[in-house]
Amino acid sequence: MKAIQDFYQEQVSHCYGCGRLNEHGYQIKSYWDGEQALCIFQPQPYHLAVPGFVYGGLIASIIDCHSTGTAAAAAYEAAGREMGTKPDFRYVTASLHVDYLRPTPIDAILHIAAKANEISGRKVVVSSSVIVDDVETARGLVTVVQMPAEWLTSFNSR
Amino acid sequence: MKAIQDFYQEQVSHCYGCGRLNEHGYQIKSYWDGEQALCIFQPQPYHLAVPGFVYGGLIASIIDCHSTGTAAAAAYEAAGREMGTKPDFRYVTASLHVDYLRPTPIDAILHIAAKANEISGRKVVVSSSVIVDDVETARGLVTVVQMPAEWLTSFNSR
Repeated sequence: MKAIQDFYQEQVSHCYGCGRLNEHGYQIKSYWDGEQALCIFQPQPYHLAVPGFVYGGLIASIIDCHSTGTAAAAAYEAAGREMGTKPDFRYVTASLHVDYLRPTPIDAILHIAAKANEISGRKVVVSSSVIVDDVETARGLVTVVQMPAEWLTSFNSR
Repeated sequence: MKAIQDFYQEQVSHCYGCGRLNEHGYQIKSYWDGEQALCIFQPQPYHLAVPGFVYGGLIASIIDCHSTGTAAAAAYEAAGREMGTKPDFRYVTASLHVDYLRPTPIDAILHIAAKANEISGRKVVVSSSVIVDDVETARGLVTVVQMPAEWLTSFNSR
């Protein structure tokens, strides 16, 4: 099954969080099931906040990219279009909110579920939840807006 | 001048964002002037969102750690105590909010200014601003709470 990010155009696939062409980055993957998107991520041992627990900035980063991906998939779904068809639905983050409910253990697999609460014009609001062993450790609420069309055409790859 | 993070105890200096002992991390530094804290950060060329602009997750990460540091410095200041004196003021993030006002250029030095809006009991609210060439590109609002005392004593270094 292709991830949402695998449909991104090459010139917008260099993101440190989710770009498949960024060899230094996290390369997160989001999978759409028709209603919501799931991201599974295993932190590295050095992605620490304090020993034993995952760095909150990493959690915010995953939520950020997973939300822009979820928005794209939800927009295609709402439009009744296949993912990857033109013109592209691609989003950037306008605001990011994360509530850290409890420490997230580092020796664990993170499951991040996200869904679009609202699609209105160029804007999508995405809520998400970080789950470790059936326990919710963080919650995200992200507002994204469609990328300017020129971003999808005018960039040169680096 | 010592950075706020240089006063952190060894067992809580492994953070991926600001731990001086995390060789894989960002190792951000925050400098306190008595009223606010300044962090100066140069992104790496691969810290991209789209080519030309800084990854929002990195901005969120810097805001996160810079805010916990600012809270510590502000709490010492409010208590009339020297930084690093015992018992430690050390904070973890309860909620993180970032508004991305405009794209942040990647070939630039980021200046992040932060101050404590409110100190109440174990909680501090910190606002921050990311400035590049005198232009504000992002704004943070972070609520932090004092670390449980046992976190400062019971961890083993990794």
